[in-house]
Amino acid sequence: MRRKVGVVGLGAMGRGVATSLLRAGFDVLGFDTNHHAADSFAAYGGTICTSLATLGESADVVIVLVVNSEQTEKVLFGEDGLVGRMRPGGVVVASSTVAPAFAIETGRRLADLGLFMIDAPVSGGVLGAAAGKLTLMTSGSEEAYARCSDVLAAYSAKIYRLGDAHGIGSTIKLLNNLLVGVHIAAASETMALGMRMGVEPRLLYDVITNSAGNSWAFQDRMPHVIAGDFTPVTALNIFVKDLGLVQEMARNANFSAVLAERAFGLFQSAADAGHGADDDTAVIKMYEGARSPA
Amino acid sequence: MRRKVGVVGLGAMGRGVATSLLRAGFDVLGFDTNHHAADSFAAYGGTICTSLATLGESADVVIVLVVNSEQTEKVLFGEDGLVGRMRPGGVVVASSTVAPAFAIETGRRLADLGLFMIDAPVSGGVLGAAAGKLTLMTSGSEEAYARCSDVLAAYSAKIYRLGDAHGIGSTIKLLNNLLVGVHIAAASETMALGMRMGVEPRLLYDVITNSAGNSWAFQDRMPHVIAGDFTPVTALNIFVKDLGLVQEMARNANFSAVLAERAFGLFQSAADAGHGADDDTAVIKMYEGARSPA
Repeated sequence: MRRKVGVVGLGAMGRGVATSLLRAGFDVLGFDTNHHAADSFAAYGGTICTSLATLGESADVVIVLVVNSEQTEKVLFGEDGLVGRMRPGGVVVASSTVAPAFAIETGRRLADLGLFMIDAPVSGGVLGAAAGKLTLMTSGSEEAYARCSDVLAAYSAKIYRLGDAHGIGSTIKLLNNLLVGVHIAAASETMALGMRMGVEPRLLYDVITNSAGNSWAFQDRMPHVIAGDFTPVTALNIFVKDLGLVQEMARNANFSAVLAERAFGLFQSAADAGHGADDDTAVIKMYEGARSPA
Repeated sequence: MRRKVGVVGLGAMGRGVATSLLRAGFDVLGFDTNHHAADSFAAYGGTICTSLATLGESADVVIVLVVNSEQTEKVLFGEDGLVGRMRPGGVVVASSTVAPAFAIETGRRLADLGLFMIDAPVSGGVLGAAAGKLTLMTSGSEEAYARCSDVLAAYSAKIYRLGDAHGIGSTIKLLNNLLVGVHIAAASETMALGMRMGVEPRLLYDVITNSAGNSWAFQDRMPHVIAGDFTPVTALNIFVKDLGLVQEMARNANFSAVLAERAFGLFQSAADAGHGADDDTAVIKMYEGARSPA
């Protein structure tokens, strides 16, 4: 009998994970409150559960890939959540980007209920998810890994095992997103200044991606700017959230993350201006808005 | 008879260029006011000129790789500079990072004296120079290229020809260095915060360089931080200078480059604290200085 794996959250990331699991031969149960996302997964041959209860009763390993800690909390411990339904010994793979303290506390509460948790934020974007080639930043007990290593391997190119303690995966994920956020903002600043100086954007992209100024974010995101297409691949609001979490983490550590703060301000201003649901590269509008009339 | 090529400025970058030219079979004449730099090049088999006059009289193509516009000005137009000595039709390859307006003006003055100029800032760092694999961001006339294309090819992996007009190469180089500067500062911020959070620096490096937070600068520079070795590969003062030029360029274009400004402030503070001659990664000391006593 094929192993049953649950995926909660079938957005761009979750759908990629779920379809990768299908390709690897798992029986995949999906759940999303968004019917469009659920239908789209069903079209790939996945099984849709109409409630978390049904999913929890059937799956031994459940990957939670929702937006934030509030949604994670609700999916696990809310009314009709997973925890009353999953069998003891089941594993929750918690993959949303959350504060390290939340990951630690969640692991503790699940353990009290006889469930295992892997703290497992992901990196690699929507394309990485679709290709089953994510990078996972994981921590958890040996026993938890023993119950889900084959599942994790099915949708990742690289799995970091960072130790027994929860929280470390989430810490490193936030540090990664600090960099991605600052890099997207810096890339936008550079492209906007270049255009102001009369440099052809495609030429600038070509030179930078072959020079020391390159970053994964510049290379991945600036084609959206060049195309002028701000249809969301990753929504700008994600960086308002993640850079907010970075600041919370930094403040708690009595640390001043000045570049992250500045980048947060740019994303927040862009969201305030109505671009929160657009692509994260819409942060460039904060620079274009300052364009001189000349 | 072998072509004679001059290289003015035999620091880390210039020495790499000069030795690459030697390997390609050119007769290379070097000049540097620093005797140690000059002697080091002589040890590679290069010919040292004791004056710019001697170098200018012999070389048809002279690559100028000094620190800034002030030095470029002096090398070209100063007392005992190159311009009174070079034969008409000679080519100056101006490769220092300078303001675009300075590049344009210099090209004009050289043309008035019957000399050609290629505006040719470089990217690729000290290792790229040593390997003869720099990226060149060049502009200039067809005739200028015709006289030095073989020379440029001898020390570069990629040559961008950005048009006839001078200044565009310098503009793109400053945009590149905006990114490098912000990326080094962001990398330092991330490493410092990670260490504060108790993350092992080598582990953080490994994860980030395999994740979306990666940049050329993070990958290239953070080993210095991990080793705690701030012996200068690129001096921190270079970014005080280059991010200063970025701000000058942005201001002239009525553009607010907020991340570049913030990064400039960090490098300037580090220089003020006595780290200007250290490696550029010494900017991390601005974060470590804020470390809590706990």
